Amino acid sequence: MMSGKTGADLRYMRLALSLARRGLGRVWPNPAVGCVIVRDDRIVGRGWTQPGGRPHAEPVALAQAGAAAKGATAYVTLEPCAHHGKTPPCAEALIAAGVSRVVCALGDPDPRVDGGGFEKLRAAGIEVETGLCETDARADQAGFLSRVTRGRPMLTLKLASSFDGRIATASGESQWITGPEARRHVHAMRASHDAVMVGAGTARDDDPSLTVRGLGVDHQPVRVVLSRHLDLPLDSQLAHTAREVPLWICHGRRAAPELISAWEGIGATLIEVDEAQAALDPASVLSALGERGLTRVYCEGGGGLAASLLVADMVDNLVGYGAGLAIGAEGRPSLAAMGLSRLAEAPRFDLVECRDIGGDVLHRWTRRTKD
Amino acid sequence: MMSGKTGADLRYMRLALSLARRGLGRVWPNPAVGCVIVRDDRIVGRGWTQPGGRPHAEPVALAQAGAAAKGATAYVTLEPCAHHGKTPPCAEALIAAGVSRVVCALGDPDPRVDGGGFEKLRAAGIEVETGLCETDARADQAGFLSRVTRGRPMLTLKLASSFDGRIATASGESQWITGPEARRHVHAMRASHDAVMVGAGTARDDDPSLTVRGLGVDHQPVRVVLSRHLDLPLDSQLAHTAREVPLWICHGRRAAPELISAWEGIGATLIEVDEAQAALDPASVLSALGERGLTRVYCEGGGGLAASLLVADMVDNLVGYGAGLAIGAEGRPSLAAMGLSRLAEAPRFDLVECRDIGGDVLHRWTRRTKD
Repeated sequence: MMSGKTGADLRYMRLALSLARRGLGRVWPNPAVGCVIVRDDRIVGRGWTQPGGRPHAEPVALAQAGAAAKGATAYVTLEPCAHHGKTPPCAEALIAAGVSRVVCALGDPDPRVDGGGFEKLRAAGIEVETGLCETDARADQAGFLSRVTRGRPMLTLKLASSFDGRIATASGESQWITGPEARRHVHAMRASHDAVMVGAGTARDDDPSLTVRGLGVDHQPVRVVLSRHLDLPLDSQLAHTAREVPLWICHGRRAAPELISAWEGIGATLIEVDEAQAALDPASVLSALGERGLTRVYCEGGGGLAASLLVADMVDNLVGYGAGLAIGAEGRPSLAAMGLSRLAEAPRFDLVECRDIGGDVLHRWTRRTKD
Repeated sequence: MMSGKTGADLRYMRLALSLARRGLGRVWPNPAVGCVIVRDDRIVGRGWTQPGGRPHAEPVALAQAGAAAKGATAYVTLEPCAHHGKTPPCAEALIAAGVSRVVCALGDPDPRVDGGGFEKLRAAGIEVETGLCETDARADQAGFLSRVTRGRPMLTLKLASSFDGRIATASGESQWITGPEARRHVHAMRASHDAVMVGAGTARDDDPSLTVRGLGVDHQPVRVVLSRHLDLPLDSQLAHTAREVPLWICHGRRAAPELISAWEGIGATLIEVDEAQAALDPASVLSALGERGLTRVYCEGGGGLAASLLVADMVDNLVGYGAGLAIGAEGRPSLAAMGLSRLAEAPRFDLVECRDIGGDVLHRWTRRTKD
């Protein structure tokens, strides 16, 4: 569609964005960045943030480009870092490699960068442009940006329910409401988040493993369980796998010390958080998770936790799976009581996507910022 | 895509089907039929069943064609009638006009027709083909076919709810959960059905008029209200408009005679139906509506009526409007209790369509016939 320099820039940036997305869910606490190095309209290097967050995208792409990086253009989805962390700054690596132009999608608000990357590049005589595909980059970086600017991870809430918003029958039967394709999508969503989070009731009732299965991925998100009193069964899938896949348990101040020891003993990480209104305080939970480096959290319920996150206005994205069956009012609701007194107080979301997913309806929403 | 006689046949039948659809909701107790008459690959007549059900599609198209019908092909979406009813049989009209070939989508199972139309045509030396676009024709005729073969109208159930399946807040506030485009779609759905049906609770709580508004249509569906004891306010929109737009009230055996008289006095039609389990029996209601000629009924709730229709397996189609807001478990459920003991008992539906409708999710389903 587009031609000339602008069209090529857009094409290469889109490629860099798609490379960046490979890192989503596996590079925390770092951002998932993509980098494409182009010399004479030929791609000489591609890189993305590697699992665990290092190496960064730029040194990977530069290593691939080798001497061809000299005089080349680097397309990077986020401002190159300027600070000496566990790796030397990427801005310096780009300078050392002799690239002549850097095109960026987005500045990095991390106070240790925050324009410093661009400054370093410009000071070295490199032409710098920024803002190309910024909207897309911002959406992909929502988790990293949330952690930097709000001190908490981005939160995606999943609700898989019957036509009438029920997640199980009165007796708790929930297998299966949605079909295999929707359930596969849930596993892909888990894989693209840093952590999967559930409430204690779901952990008790469903005995879930909360791992990613059936997708051929080697990486597993952190499992986060919220349990005020730590009254969770030690004979459970989560407990049995706590040494293989990280298990973090957020609990309240008054959890019994012997329970804390028991869970620590089997390999779980225990995190004490504040309480509010006889429950764990959602804001305290999320800031604790942000402090520990999580940028993208996927909450799978249950209804009590989901409602408390919505009431606390912590939900950035909603992903719904709607199945074609009716359960009726005795069934378990997807959301518990929210205490709204007026319809105008109901949190509203904007539709991002809706489509058929193996006979169920997939609908994705994002928190409405203005009315 | 297609060429020659077959491609042309398909094209003309599709046109006839689209003409037929103009009659949906306004031709009961008759089927909504379309007819296209083609001579030498030129359309010389188009017709569709007229409001009220007469004239039929064929005489309308034949009148337009005039002498050009001689030797022409008639494309008709349903077998032409063979019996003398309020109009002479369409099969005879086609014979009299001299058409040489009739292409049909579907036979008419009405015992007064049931192959008799085709026989008449063939006996007159007319070439008859049937089954072209039969699946589409069958879907469009679902209401008529239901009445003929099951003695009750086709039933479409609407559920407009929040993300978590709520139709109102705890205090009953429901304006507005869905947006204007979804609400306009509801009016179009009303217009394409013979009747709009609600339970007594909805009639009391919402004081609806249940008319079609804002679409520039002159025709109004029958309003049907279910009220076992006839305890409906006489000072209501439904009551005030009972002489302008038909209002049928289904009630139980023990409704007070003075209430029956009062409602008859303001112009409503009263229909006594059987009761089952302290409520009106859904099967009795629908067969009473079928007896009176209705072929397509659109139920707009509330949750109690919707649940009883689902439990009685009377729901053929579901139309959902899902809004991007969360109300929580104190909100009114879209479906009342259904008494299911196992998930396998839940009625299941197959997804027909899902799409964005002005920022809400429109999802349409049809009853699953086999598992």
